[in-house]
Amino acid sequence: MQSGETLTKLPQIIEAATRCFQDKGYVATTLNDIAEAVNLQKPTLYHYVKNKNELLFLVLKNTAESYNQALEAVVASPLNPRDKLDRAIRQHIHLQLEHPGTVTLFRDVGELDRGYRLEIRQALKRYRELLQDIIRQGIEAGRFRPADPSMAALFVLGAVNFVHRWYREEGPRSIPEIAEFYSQTLLQSLSQS
Amino acid sequence: MQSGETLTKLPQIIEAATRCFQDKGYVATTLNDIAEAVNLQKPTLYHYVKNKNELLFLVLKNTAESYNQALEAVVASPLNPRDKLDRAIRQHIHLQLEHPGTVTLFRDVGELDRGYRLEIRQALKRYRELLQDIIRQGIEAGRFRPADPSMAALFVLGAVNFVHRWYREEGPRSIPEIAEFYSQTLLQSLSQS
Repeated sequence: MQSGETLTKLPQIIEAATRCFQDKGYVATTLNDIAEAVNLQKPTLYHYVKNKNELLFLVLKNTAESYNQALEAVVASPLNPRDKLDRAIRQHIHLQLEHPGTVTLFRDVGELDRGYRLEIRQALKRYRELLQDIIRQGIEAGRFRPADPSMAALFVLGAVNFVHRWYREEGPRSIPEIAEFYSQTLLQSLSQS
Repeated sequence: MQSGETLTKLPQIIEAATRCFQDKGYVATTLNDIAEAVNLQKPTLYHYVKNKNELLFLVLKNTAESYNQALEAVVASPLNPRDKLDRAIRQHIHLQLEHPGTVTLFRDVGELDRGYRLEIRQALKRYRELLQDIIRQGIEAGRFRPADPSMAALFVLGAVNFVHRWYREEGPRSIPEIAEFYSQTLLQSLSQS
């Protein structure tokens, strides 16, 4: 992965791998399937990645990083904790429902080789901790009721991460409507009553 | 599954299958593994079940039915809608954390043969509808704020179903503490503000 050409093709390969994993499942997908999907010979694919496991790792890492960067931007903003949580929830719902397929692949994190698995778990932990920090600041500022910020963050994550399981593009609710409901309901759940 | 003897051994077989599926995963488990775990010859196992797929179905069906029966009892109770939801959330958390392994196996619902799959999905839908009815009654009684009862039920389910993913028996929070937090937080999230 040194040359310019190599770098330019990797995103396409990752995208093709994402689609193959979504369509056939990680276990059933072969490197041949992925090579065919990007019109490369399998030996050429090996210039880019070591094996299928590295590809799953790259797919999950890209996704986790985009979520973390989005949440870091909210944390760094001048908003108050309540508005930070509002924005965090809305953008989480948007990210998830606009790219529902990649989220599903986190189910396969157990298939990753140990080093990869630890790195992905670390990235997921980072996201949880950022969310937890927003909640802790909201409690300290008296905007949220006193609660265990760690359990509150897990509560929020459980609620928002389930959305891609039931959302249908052709369903009765739009993504902004869902984001509005989740933000309003979660903010009320943590607010001073 | 006609004779008395057959019926008495089936629960043991289901229990052994549950453990094997949890330990090795559904795909990697063989009927031999399950036969060994209950000290039966594989041909004897065939007196009880047709194949591994039927066993996964029976495991999931038993679990889904126990959740549905518990929720039906709450619905039939003389409690008001708010107290019904309180009890429903607490018992859901208890059921889940006292038997965390069976919940995990619902990930494999896609492995079921079509007829089995539809029956399990129907049972899960029944649970969601019972929860939705409690929420709708709470809205009609003015105890919960006006909201889409179907999305509210999915919201509650997402939050409570994530708990087994992070709960550890040796962790800092007891099951009653978690049930208390989830019930209080979810009731506040839906209440009239």
